[in-house]
Amino acid sequence: MVDAITSLQNPRIKQVRRLRDHRARVEENRYVIDSRRDLARALAAGHQVDYVLIESSRFGTLSDVSIDAQIPVSAQALDKASYRDNNDGIAAVMMRQAIPGAAEFLRIGRVPVLALAAIEKPGNVGALLRTADAAGFGSVVLIDCPIDVYNPNVIRASTGAVFLGNVYEMTTAQAQDAFSTRGLRTYATHLDAATDAFSVQFVKDSVLLMGQEDIGLPEAWLAFADERIIIPMAGKIADSLNVAAAGAVLMFEMYRQTRNQ
Amino acid sequence: MVDAITSLQNPRIKQVRRLRDHRARVEENRYVIDSRRDLARALAAGHQVDYVLIESSRFGTLSDVSIDAQIPVSAQALDKASYRDNNDGIAAVMMRQAIPGAAEFLRIGRVPVLALAAIEKPGNVGALLRTADAAGFGSVVLIDCPIDVYNPNVIRASTGAVFLGNVYEMTTAQAQDAFSTRGLRTYATHLDAATDAFSVQFVKDSVLLMGQEDIGLPEAWLAFADERIIIPMAGKIADSLNVAAAGAVLMFEMYRQTRNQ
Repeated sequence: MVDAITSLQNPRIKQVRRLRDHRARVEENRYVIDSRRDLARALAAGHQVDYVLIESSRFGTLSDVSIDAQIPVSAQALDKASYRDNNDGIAAVMMRQAIPGAAEFLRIGRVPVLALAAIEKPGNVGALLRTADAAGFGSVVLIDCPIDVYNPNVIRASTGAVFLGNVYEMTTAQAQDAFSTRGLRTYATHLDAATDAFSVQFVKDSVLLMGQEDIGLPEAWLAFADERIIIPMAGKIADSLNVAAAGAVLMFEMYRQTRNQ
Repeated sequence: MVDAITSLQNPRIKQVRRLRDHRARVEENRYVIDSRRDLARALAAGHQVDYVLIESSRFGTLSDVSIDAQIPVSAQALDKASYRDNNDGIAAVMMRQAIPGAAEFLRIGRVPVLALAAIEKPGNVGALLRTADAAGFGSVVLIDCPIDVYNPNVIRASTGAVFLGNVYEMTTAQAQDAFSTRGLRTYATHLDAATDAFSVQFVKDSVLLMGQEDIGLPEAWLAFADERIIIPMAGKIADSLNVAAAGAVLMFEMYRQTRNQ
């Protein structure tokens, strides 16, 4: 076993730090996983490891990664490289996989579909991916997505659901064309002049559309949708649900209604 | 108008920084609000301002706080003092209000009740407070709560719902006694051997009990509860809902069923 890397100037320590940045992830075609659970899910999904920095004095080696790709580092160097304090003893540098688009969705995309239009907070996107899996959604379509799916906060909040192979990226035009071609019924969440979500008869061949937390869905989607729905609010505070909570309520209401279809 | 504070050594800048810490908040009997929306909600709830650091060169003054209590600071000093980057131009130092307990709950606590047993992440507690308001829950009971309700992440994630005056703190024994005395039906979320939450007939005179994300509810609550319920999971990933999402699903299912009662 080689000596553990301790220098914060080591090129790999520096690369892991650099990969916090979206542009670096794209230019270097890599991303970082800092949890063993998420790494296991990425490997199961066929993602390729470049190398893993591992605090081997405490954690030994990983059984599911080639030993040559495992590079011992000191705790201090790993903490310096890692995005968060609680890094699980590893920083795995992974090769990016391309996110499939409209063509793949038309061929193999499963229903129901969660579609997120321009949601900007990585933690919300990750949480919605996790919940979509729990509620039996077959696909998640990211429309005009301003963030990187391989953002560490997306990965972490999704608890690895981002690696289930059912996440697609499309433009608005591509998504509208794809949903029409597939004949999917579209439900758009909307705060004004909308139907009470608990009185809608949901179908499984459908798309649940959610927009940005502050401004909601763009007009193009409100006009496109078959129904504009709202979660009825009983509260004293007007803006009473964040997008991850609203998504959970609506996805499980759709699941409740359609699970025996 | 006095000159804006620019020194990072100013005692008030140092106090705001210090109040990030739970112990300091208790010892100094104060807490900090860094958003205008949350400040407005705290004031509406009768909370008292000690002073507000305000970046008055950009934001002027606040109309709902005594001018004498508004202390101009430079942007740099405020950023240094403030808990987060996006601080809305203010850091309001507030007097803590005591959180009511079992006696007040027995007297004025409204139903349905959300009860959180030892949930540890401030962001989750705040999100659940926000959702509880949205779903028409009358009270939130924090049981053996290890965190401070005036933690800045609780306040922020609750979008001010923490100031609605319906949050109570109790021990397990106090809460069980209070729920029994009030004759409330208790639903405990539980991952094993539980009833499908979508097949339960919920009633409004009730308590929804949620436990820690990883370990769930303690045995004392599972034994106490009238029903042990679970959200049915359709997903590939086992631990597929975080506690804030699970709470949103269950609270709105209860609301859906009982809103016309």
